[in-house]
Amino acid sequence: MPNPLLKEIRRDPLLWLLVFVPVAFAGEKLAPGAHTLLFLLSVLAIVPLAALLSHATESVAAKTGDSVGGLLNATLGNLTELVIALTALGAGQYVLVKASIAGAIVTNTLFVLGASLLLGGLKHHVQEFNRAGARLQAGLLFLATIALLVPSAIAESDRVPGLAFTQKLSLGLAVLLIVTYALGMLFSLKTHREFFGSAEHAEAGEAPWPLGLALGTLAGVTVLVALVSEVFVGSVQEAAVAFGMTPAFVGFIVVALVGGAAEMGSAFSGARKNRLDLSVGIALGSAAQIALFVAPVLVLLSYVLGPAPMSLEFWPGAVVMMLVATLTATLLTNTGRSAWFVGVLPLMVYLIFAMTLYLLPPQVQ
Amino acid sequence: MPNPLLKEIRRDPLLWLLVFVPVAFAGEKLAPGAHTLLFLLSVLAIVPLAALLSHATESVAAKTGDSVGGLLNATLGNLTELVIALTALGAGQYVLVKASIAGAIVTNTLFVLGASLLLGGLKHHVQEFNRAGARLQAGLLFLATIALLVPSAIAESDRVPGLAFTQKLSLGLAVLLIVTYALGMLFSLKTHREFFGSAEHAEAGEAPWPLGLALGTLAGVTVLVALVSEVFVGSVQEAAVAFGMTPAFVGFIVVALVGGAAEMGSAFSGARKNRLDLSVGIALGSAAQIALFVAPVLVLLSYVLGPAPMSLEFWPGAVVMMLVATLTATLLTNTGRSAWFVGVLPLMVYLIFAMTLYLLPPQVQ
Amino acid sequence: MPNPLLKEIRRDPLLWLLVFVPVAFAGEKLAPGAHTLLFLLSVLAIVPLAALLSHATESVAAKTGDSVGGLLNATLGNLTELVIALTALGAGQYVLVKASIAGAIVTNTLFVLGASLLLGGLKHHVQEFNRAGARLQAGLLFLATIALLVPSAIAESDRVPGLAFTQKLSLGLAVLLIVTYALGMLFSLKTHREFFGSAEHAEAGEAPWPLGLALGTLAGVTVLVALVSEVFVGSVQEAAVAFGMTPAFVGFIVVALVGGAAEMGSAFSGARKNRLDLSVGIALGSAAQIALFVAPVLVLLSYVLGPAPMSLEFWPGAVVMMLVATLTATLLTNTGRSAWFVGVLPLMVYLIFAMTLYLLPPQVQ
Repeated sequence: MPNPLLKEIRRDPLLWLLVFVPVAFAGEKLAPGAHTLLFLLSVLAIVPLAALLSHATESVAAKTGDSVGGLLNATLGNLTELVIALTALGAGQYVLVKASIAGAIVTNTLFVLGASLLLGGLKHHVQEFNRAGARLQAGLLFLATIALLVPSAIAESDRVPGLAFTQKLSLGLAVLLIVTYALGMLFSLKTHREFFGSAEHAEAGEAPWPLGLALGTLAGVTVLVALVSEVFVGSVQEAAVAFGMTPAFVGFIVVALVGGAAEMGSAFSGARKNRLDLSVGIALGSAAQIALFVAPVLVLLSYVLGPAPMSLEFWPGAVVMMLVATLTATLLTNTGRSAWFVGVLPLMVYLIFAMTLYLLPPQVQ
Repeated sequence: MPNPLLKEIRRDPLLWLLVFVPVAFAGEKLAPGAHTLLFLLSVLAIVPLAALLSHATESVAAKTGDSVGGLLNATLGNLTELVIALTALGAGQYVLVKASIAGAIVTNTLFVLGASLLLGGLKHHVQEFNRAGARLQAGLLFLATIALLVPSAIAESDRVPGLAFTQKLSLGLAVLLIVTYALGMLFSLKTHREFFGSAEHAEAGEAPWPLGLALGTLAGVTVLVALVSEVFVGSVQEAAVAFGMTPAFVGFIVVALVGGAAEMGSAFSGARKNRLDLSVGIALGSAAQIALFVAPVLVLLSYVLGPAPMSLEFWPGAVVMMLVATLTATLLTNTGRSAWFVGVLPLMVYLIFAMTLYLLPPQVQ
Repeated sequence: MPNPLLKEIRRDPLLWLLVFVPVAFAGEKLAPGAHTLLFLLSVLAIVPLAALLSHATESVAAKTGDSVGGLLNATLGNLTELVIALTALGAGQYVLVKASIAGAIVTNTLFVLGASLLLGGLKHHVQEFNRAGARLQAGLLFLATIALLVPSAIAESDRVPGLAFTQKLSLGLAVLLIVTYALGMLFSLKTHREFFGSAEHAEAGEAPWPLGLALGTLAGVTVLVALVSEVFVGSVQEAAVAFGMTPAFVGFIVVALVGGAAEMGSAFSGARKNRLDLSVGIALGSAAQIALFVAPVLVLLSYVLGPAPMSLEFWPGAVVMMLVATLTATLLTNTGRSAWFVGVLPLMVYLIFAMTLYLLPPQVQ
């Protein structure tokens, strides 16, 4: 293994968790029925892999120039979430896929944003950030929420219009969301980039790795994440029961926190360094990327990989939560200024949701 | 026919479509069962009539001084939509009336606004507009959406309170909306007119016609629109089936685009000329006028003209679309600045709605 | 009775209504079945008591220094509403308790705010106010509405998860709301007080009373309010029927107007004196206090005082009204500027709600 990767591992204690990757594989071979243990091992293995993946993506982005780099960050930034969801998709666990999509959107919009504003505000009396970036991401999120609201609202009504309708509509919406996401990148990375100056992901990293190492890590770690995800997806439901957690709570909260652990670290440390642009960009940017890129790509891929096409119809409760999360982020980032209490509000909304999901009897979701 | 009207017709190719007015009448006499043909002919006839009506209204307004002119624009600006809806009202087609009201609000708020911002933004890097005007119209629209939400929400609930309640409530709401609209005009045209300076309709026109010609055109064309509307309303439902379109799609999208074609032209050309105040004023002003003036007037007139009183209870899907459209416009016009991507967002929301209505099986709406 | 209290009574004609306090008690003894009369007498008695209570709270607050004073105002500012609700709670009238909570929130957010902006705007062409204060209160209200939305939305769904779930969730939400309210006070009264400068309640009063008198009045009048509330709660339902009003209308509109009469006076006179900070602070501050302090305290106290635990599950119509009211206040106070028409909009929303509740058949709510 080349030098910079080893140095990185020595420097960052989070990466010491990499030792759990082989342990998880060994565990699956030796005790395939120990779901709770396998769940814990796979969580401990995914977290450092996600951190490596995030660092490798940023390194490739930094080496390839601004436009291609921005594009890479914008498409591979949530590779961990995508790989986990793809594994669940292949296993036909559509409920888990959808819960993890909705959960990742809500967690980024409320928890990562709120905790960043709170942690930053506890150190700095008042903080400022670039409103243009926050507005663009909030606008994209708003559009995605509308797109998810429509099929769910119609499917919920008494007069259910049947599966064929939901399927066709979901396909159309997926294409529309990806087109909008692409236009949004064209806007922020190309035609009007001067308005979005300092808010980019790529600045987060330290000295980037050489391109070869970065690309190699990207490929290798993606394969490892896919393999560990199989252990994770195979054990999560039964482990949840063992912990007394509802499947909704696991899909929404646990999967989202596991998949996004690496990015959260960057967002929080950015906020402490008074670089709120970075934190807000990670929080809202990740949420927008999952809503307008990961989710529609999963719908399209379900025609190839899944046992049946996946629709964009969500559990109504999840749609309400995404709507509320988007509205909260829109209202909070409106002024471009923040203090600690501004972070408390989205965290409390997140707590309300987490509490509800935790208490909800399993058959309801 | 006097000179300026002929000159106008020679200058504006859109008005050459006027030839379809007699053709549509002839068609109805000769082939009363050819619904698809009659539908197309009536659409082609209404578009130039709407353009003439709009120009005549503006000419009268320009001649009568600012306050009366503003009043005229604010009440007759959507005369085409009003006449079409009145024809459908007289025929007892309340579902079509309501779909065309909701469709006109959504189309103006999302499509006309979005396309104006996009077309303007493709020519100008960043555009500015008067926030005060946009805010007033968005506020009026917000109020109207609440007024339409309440009877629909209560009628939707399991515990339906009966027709008498909905009837009485609709009557009260209609009066309330008209009063608010009148107060809004008093505010923007009289007591606080300095804040709404350049956003007025009346500036759109070229050299106005003489008053006599304008009044004559206004009267004559209104009668023609009413007659062509009868052909349109009589053929639209069966033509929709022939085209494979759902009635909801026709009422929402087709009728709204036909009725508003003339105004859209002014809004788009205003945006290209970097006069966004004009475009935003037309888009949101028309929507507010339909919601707070045309719709309640139709409720009141249904007691005189219709076979039974019409309520303000809408299909829940239509209420959701109006709510989303209002919220979108409120959030987008908040800053008073625009670039091309700001126009993409409402257009995409409009596409989501249009796609859903197009795919929706007929019995659901 | 000491001098300042007598002087106050002589100066303020509203306090002459204090004569109805003994009359109401006498009425209850002599004619316990005359519900309509007892209702009217108790209303006339509560209004001046609420005014005294408000004045005494402000006097104590003024004497105890800024932080403690702010705390007192923030917790005792809606003592009248709390005592009325506690009386209804003890009587097991949970529907009335919840209607009065929701009604007080909606009435403060729409009626008190709207009437203040309108009355102020009729005297002053354009008025300005402190946006930071309005934003904080609107943010708190938004959070509370989300907290009330969740249990009601889930209880409404087809798949009702049972009483135990609602009970546990309500308890958790109550604790969460109180914690957020306390953090909000810490933020606005302590860590970031410089942003909320002039908006505080305490400035409303004239020369404050001596501390002993103020504390005595506070204690004595609270007991009187509790006693009169018993007459009020015991007669309100049957009186409503006699007046042809629905219970929902009484709970929402009448109780809220009676309980908040004193504060409304201060809000309106502040607006006339171009001190909109005061008016907006009273309107939104009272609503936030009821939502984040009074309502959760009532849930907690229901375990001690009520016949059964009270949940935070509201009638869905009430939740919609609170959501709309919060959204209206958020959008309107966004700019920090106001003119008369800005007050018309929330008043009209309030009228829509009042009209709907008045017309709604009793069995529906």
